[in-house]
Amino acid sequence: MILEVYGHGGDLRTASARYGLAPEQFIDFSANINPLGPPPGLLDRLSEALPQVAGYPDPGHRVLISRLAQSLDTDGACFVIGNGAAENMALALLALSPSKVGVIEPCFSEYKTLSQQFGAEVISVLGEEERDFRAAPEEVERLIAACDLVFIGQPNNPNGVQYSLDELHRFAEAGERYGTYVVVDEAFIDFIPGPQRQSLLAELERYPRLILIRSMTKFYAIPGLRLGYAISHPRTAAAMRGKQVTWSVNLLALLAGEICLAAGQEYEQATISLIARQREVLRRELDHLDCRTWPGEANFLLVRLPEIWTAAGMQEALGARGVLVRSCAMYPGLGERDIRIAVKDPAACTKLLHEMKQVLAGGMKK
Amino acid sequence: MILEVYGHGGDLRTASARYGLAPEQFIDFSANINPLGPPPGLLDRLSEALPQVAGYPDPGHRVLISRLAQSLDTDGACFVIGNGAAENMALALLALSPSKVGVIEPCFSEYKTLSQQFGAEVISVLGEEERDFRAAPEEVERLIAACDLVFIGQPNNPNGVQYSLDELHRFAEAGERYGTYVVVDEAFIDFIPGPQRQSLLAELERYPRLILIRSMTKFYAIPGLRLGYAISHPRTAAAMRGKQVTWSVNLLALLAGEICLAAGQEYEQATISLIARQREVLRRELDHLDCRTWPGEANFLLVRLPEIWTAAGMQEALGARGVLVRSCAMYPGLGERDIRIAVKDPAACTKLLHEMKQVLAGGMKK
Repeated sequence: MILEVYGHGGDLRTASARYGLAPEQFIDFSANINPLGPPPGLLDRLSEALPQVAGYPDPGHRVLISRLAQSLDTDGACFVIGNGAAENMALALLALSPSKVGVIEPCFSEYKTLSQQFGAEVISVLGEEERDFRAAPEEVERLIAACDLVFIGQPNNPNGVQYSLDELHRFAEAGERYGTYVVVDEAFIDFIPGPQRQSLLAELERYPRLILIRSMTKFYAIPGLRLGYAISHPRTAAAMRGKQVTWSVNLLALLAGEICLAAGQEYEQATISLIARQREVLRRELDHLDCRTWPGEANFLLVRLPEIWTAAGMQEALGARGVLVRSCAMYPGLGERDIRIAVKDPAACTKLLHEMKQVLAGGMKK
Repeated sequence: MILEVYGHGGDLRTASARYGLAPEQFIDFSANINPLGPPPGLLDRLSEALPQVAGYPDPGHRVLISRLAQSLDTDGACFVIGNGAAENMALALLALSPSKVGVIEPCFSEYKTLSQQFGAEVISVLGEEERDFRAAPEEVERLIAACDLVFIGQPNNPNGVQYSLDELHRFAEAGERYGTYVVVDEAFIDFIPGPQRQSLLAELERYPRLILIRSMTKFYAIPGLRLGYAISHPRTAAAMRGKQVTWSVNLLALLAGEICLAAGQEYEQATISLIARQREVLRRELDHLDCRTWPGEANFLLVRLPEIWTAAGMQEALGARGVLVRSCAMYPGLGERDIRIAVKDPAACTKLLHEMKQVLAGGMKK
């Protein structure tokens, strides 16, 4: 029995039923949300705006699109606002109707789930452990040649690594050459310091078959509200909007998006610095606990437990102590000792490391 | 130029750009929302719960489903919780992949829009004016025989009338006989006094191809949050959930649904009484203004303006006075003099009638 009965981390209700603690009593490393919480003042602004929910959301998402267009210096016609990044993935699949979708395992399970849900055959290649679970660029190109649409996580979940800009160009060019849509999922890219972010956003005009998908709920800590967006050629964006159910993005999510875009440098820098610092603390301390980690750049770490442990056993032992981690045993290409942990604030990380140390010292529990 | 640039009423942003008033300055008769506003205490409860949006919504909608199951005395396996009633319609279309979808015009435009969006051919029959824009039962049966899925509004939007329980049984039986899904849209049924509601909810087990769709955002005045549900055979419900994007229903909508179900008789009765009373006031006064109305039972009225007027002209004239009405000129089967108005509180109705009287006295404006 695992916690991910719906295929994802962050399921506090299942954890609560399983471990007998209230949802808010858990420290949740199983979902990758900004540990600083929402930007200062956001919840107060939303609270003031609550009476507005007696009216409909703007079905055209006009204000948020114009703010995003300005903030990212990209034509508003390129944007699709979605009910979370997941809706944008679904809209791409519904609009483009690929027969074959390519994924590079291990990756976010929704690439495969949504593709099959909407009738596509999924072709997987396995990332190589010695490439930190990236696939070799020539293998990605072969995948692009063989498919109608390929998902690429950048940084990829659950390993947290990026492809280089050169590799991304190579993939996008292959997409144009073979007539394959290349969907780059940048849901976690905002957590990476600007100079290290590898994104083709500025090159969008060169690649009509490139689609970038971003999330606003992870960096701004509002996954309960649901908000993401896609950026692509205006023709693709229009086709995606054509498959969207009217009002699928709720009024508070739209308003939160507008407020978050104005959150300012200070909150963003504080988040990025905290993540970079805490990720290195976790990596170092986990190393002392004989856990292997990979050089991810995102706000989570892929962790391989010492040999006598399983992810299921560790999840169970930590869950009973009020700490949730994500088992990675169900990711193709990963093994039954692999877990993923979010990078959180110092107090939470100290608690995680303390409990892991206790559990590991107690010996194996399958 | 009409206000319904996105095909629906309630678009305050377009109205604001058009008439130069702030969105909150309009009295909006173009969307059919409970004039009492959300249940007492709901917004306070949501405000307290706002910090929870830093976590994910329950992807299984478990608490709300169990409350609905109890409240409607129906097995939880029959429910699909959706991001508004519209998502439930989309899920039915995606799950059942009808080649031909039947609609009875005039009706909610999304039946046709969503069907075409997801690849179905739409077959329409026209309701008959002498039947208050219902279609003859034998014609509905023929439509069911000719299609894979048929939408029926109960009460129907924009005319507000119901089919009788006998007719509904006849349609549901035809659905079973011809292997056609009958989707009864009960989005506005809660506004009708219990004894007058015509619904097959209690007969669900007899009709495996029957799907009921309900909205929680109109009666409980929370359209900005998005919440609806479908009730059907568990096999159909499972197929619909299989097409849903994970977390498409946001955390506050789920919580609001739980709170609304506990809102209690007093709020519900006050709403139903207010609507019944005000609808008759509107009908009587509109009659004095030489406007024709139909005997709708819902929280809106279909209105035919005096001969020299057009819906577009009236919408424009009222809009400039801060009052929004829905033009029905684009509904097949209705004409360019037809508008729809929501039933609202006495002060709002008085304002509408006063402004309409002024406008009508001023003579034609096309």
